[in-house]
Amino acid sequence: MDFRSQGQLMRDMKTAAIIGGGVIGGGWAARFLLNGWDVRICDPDPEAARKIGEVLDGARRALPMLYDTRLPPEGELTFCDGIGAAVAGADWVQESVPERLDLKHRVMAEIQATCDPDAVVGSSTSGFTPSQLQEGAARPEQILVTHPFNPVYLLPLVEVVASAATPPDRLEQTEEVLRSLGMYPLRVRGEIDAHIADRLLEAVWREALWLVSDGIATTGEIDDAIRYGFGLRWAQMGLFETYRIAGGEAGMAQFLEQFGPALKWPWTKLMDVPDLTPDLIARLEAQSDAQSGHLSVRALERLRDDNLVAILRALRQRGAGAGALIAAHEATLRTPVAGMPLVTVERVIPVDWIDQNGHMNESRYGQVFSDAADAVLDYVGAGMDHIAGGHSYFTTETVISYLRETHAGEAVRVETTVAEAAGKKLRLSHEMKRSDGTPLATCRQSLVHVSLATRRACEPGADLVQRLQALVTPRSNSA
Amino acid sequence: MDFRSQGQLMRDMKTAAIIGGGVIGGGWAARFLLNGWDVRICDPDPEAARKIGEVLDGARRALPMLYDTRLPPEGELTFCDGIGAAVAGADWVQESVPERLDLKHRVMAEIQATCDPDAVVGSSTSGFTPSQLQEGAARPEQILVTHPFNPVYLLPLVEVVASAATPPDRLEQTEEVLRSLGMYPLRVRGEIDAHIADRLLEAVWREALWLVSDGIATTGEIDDAIRYGFGLRWAQMGLFETYRIAGGEAGMAQFLEQFGPALKWPWTKLMDVPDLTPDLIARLEAQSDAQSGHLSVRALERLRDDNLVAILRALRQRGAGAGALIAAHEATLRTPVAGMPLVTVERVIPVDWIDQNGHMNESRYGQVFSDAADAVLDYVGAGMDHIAGGHSYFTTETVISYLRETHAGEAVRVETTVAEAAGKKLRLSHEMKRSDGTPLATCRQSLVHVSLATRRACEPGADLVQRLQALVTPRSNSA
Repeated sequence: MDFRSQGQLMRDMKTAAIIGGGVIGGGWAARFLLNGWDVRICDPDPEAARKIGEVLDGARRALPMLYDTRLPPEGELTFCDGIGAAVAGADWVQESVPERLDLKHRVMAEIQATCDPDAVVGSSTSGFTPSQLQEGAARPEQILVTHPFNPVYLLPLVEVVASAATPPDRLEQTEEVLRSLGMYPLRVRGEIDAHIADRLLEAVWREALWLVSDGIATTGEIDDAIRYGFGLRWAQMGLFETYRIAGGEAGMAQFLEQFGPALKWPWTKLMDVPDLTPDLIARLEAQSDAQSGHLSVRALERLRDDNLVAILRALRQRGAGAGALIAAHEATLRTPVAGMPLVTVERVIPVDWIDQNGHMNESRYGQVFSDAADAVLDYVGAGMDHIAGGHSYFTTETVISYLRETHAGEAVRVETTVAEAAGKKLRLSHEMKRSDGTPLATCRQSLVHVSLATRRACEPGADLVQRLQALVTPRSNSA
Repeated sequence: MDFRSQGQLMRDMKTAAIIGGGVIGGGWAARFLLNGWDVRICDPDPEAARKIGEVLDGARRALPMLYDTRLPPEGELTFCDGIGAAVAGADWVQESVPERLDLKHRVMAEIQATCDPDAVVGSSTSGFTPSQLQEGAARPEQILVTHPFNPVYLLPLVEVVASAATPPDRLEQTEEVLRSLGMYPLRVRGEIDAHIADRLLEAVWREALWLVSDGIATTGEIDDAIRYGFGLRWAQMGLFETYRIAGGEAGMAQFLEQFGPALKWPWTKLMDVPDLTPDLIARLEAQSDAQSGHLSVRALERLRDDNLVAILRALRQRGAGAGALIAAHEATLRTPVAGMPLVTVERVIPVDWIDQNGHMNESRYGQVFSDAADAVLDYVGAGMDHIAGGHSYFTTETVISYLRETHAGEAVRVETTVAEAAGKKLRLSHEMKRSDGTPLATCRQSLVHVSLATRRACEPGADLVQRLQALVTPRSNSA
């Protein structure tokens, strides 16, 4: 990808006109605004400002969280009374009105009556082809399909579809702007109803409706079948690269040989299937090689597994989807905290904790020690129930010494001693070791007991302090 | 979910027999072994031990990374010469031989000739129904479909399909064991070729083959259309809950009204579509309400967005899929480090950094300060190029003081001063502030210059030390 000329673009193209302000138009408005563009919106709905405000609130909350740097200052948002006022002088016009061809033709005519002939005019249509949209237009060559996906402010995909009338440099300019917004322009090679992604979605949607209609599964069960299974694969690799792996070392050809016959079986209601001619098989193989042929199946498997681990751990932190299952399973696996010093953590270092130096990032040592503190608190009855009761311990200071590098897949444990437990104050000493006992890091941690209502320090119950004091040992922390 | 009786199960059911040791059989073996079961494998392939060894290597690497605790000690793995030897006394028998009904019938007969009548006998078949598998069996009631998804050791989904011959308590026992392995048994309500997930997959597969066959997209473009778009949605919510949100406040009924007509359009090759009768619409609405009705569309949107942020950030850390796009976009957004003290981080706190106390976890302060150190190093020419040249700085100690709570969505910045730069040694002082200047935390960080070949301390070039020393200011760090 080439982002080099974004500075240039940011100077030259700064105003977007959003025609039609539903969920999709509002999502476009958010993408442009939060990337520093001014945005003018035209929507006849008297509720438009409220509805777009809600989409914008969501986008302002979520989009900046994706980045480890700040976004540019937000552009200016204006609501316009008519299409003409919105598009005059705009560099990009995005049409997102309802999916009726006659309506889209009327709106396009009104847009082109006023807009700059050099402006990009993109349509969010999920179904119509650019040739259909261009019918009867003043300047057909100006109109493209730029089809985004909900939520537009978070998902990068935009299908870009041109017709024979579209000049190549207009197409390139369009894609460059989309990239400057953090989006991914996917150029569609041919005009077809519903482009690419919605054809796949529509096939699944129809098959899913059959499953409900035939009483095989409920909507919730179908969702579970997706989010606990292939949905996790598709979030990272998609369909063909996943299947390439399933074919084993022989790759795509092997997979087609193995699963091609299923095309003749009644496995979907979709029975009009393409013939797997030698030509089509050769094409599939060549395309799959171009996509993934630089990696062995073993290497692809490892990428897939590492990405799945990262996605599953992200969902686990959120308590969502398959991540909630892992947390529930883990609850059955935890070894009770025991021994003296207490063994508070026993775990393996996951691959998403590794940084550019090829070892565990310093912050993840902090995470392990934070987990160790949680384990002690849980052990003395100051865990989730204590939090539910409105009290907790907050950390006020940590001192971490990094003794050795730690790597993905290594098994580690943490031994913890209670150094001091006096009133509100609690001091813990942790030592992280490899499973063979080699010290990896030490941590001294100061905590304070707080009320979660006032977020201020407060005295814990005497019984809790007593349980903590019983753990204080005279021996100094080994380090 | 009920995991309570896992202890009981772990005592009572400890040996699994894996009949057919391909990718799927090997994945089952890994699931059982890594959850403490003994596993016996029967596969006539002379290469079976090598192939299963490779699957096991992958599983041993990836599965333990999912958990913040250790897995139980691994069970014992045995290769058996015949089906009889493998299944004798086993508590679970999993058949994963090739998809030929005559072969499966022969294998089932051999399994049932020796296995315990109380053992679970599950088939990994993706296509056949339990009634088909049970034809001619000695004990039809013993045979179930337990259909997993690749990689079996990471994906939780198992479709469980019974026939009318299956006793309900056998079904429950089967599901309980699957849950104890960290899997999700999805009970399929009816017998149908290819169950649930593979029907959806097959519909997409056929549609995707048409897209390649018609020259609309390559395999790589189809994968991009999935992993940059709806694949990210499906990893967390699936199909119907996502569409419920798209329907807006009116939910599923609104969505069906809006997109129902598309069923009549040629948007897929799958044209045999169910009629959206009032009865089917009512059923879809009721099922969607049962699934998600306790949450407003606004609340669902927020869950969706937060989960997407977490997934996208996980992929970003891996440099994979849509995450690579975010990193590339971010490179165009970074404000250069400048000022004195240096402003080294300007960012928003993402939702996946929040812990059970409702504020940013202590370890994420460490991550922000780690990023701040990276920014200083990058500024003085000791960034990724330096690392590529075989040198880096490793952190040896951090002292973090937590002054105020930090919350999701807050904009923060870090101001950094170089406290000391002498030979191999580098000391940095960071202060993290809210965008209004309120101090949130301070960090003193000691680093040492290292050779990445020896992983030991070494002198940096004099020019690098000079550039760092130029940043040392006599003023003490503000705090």
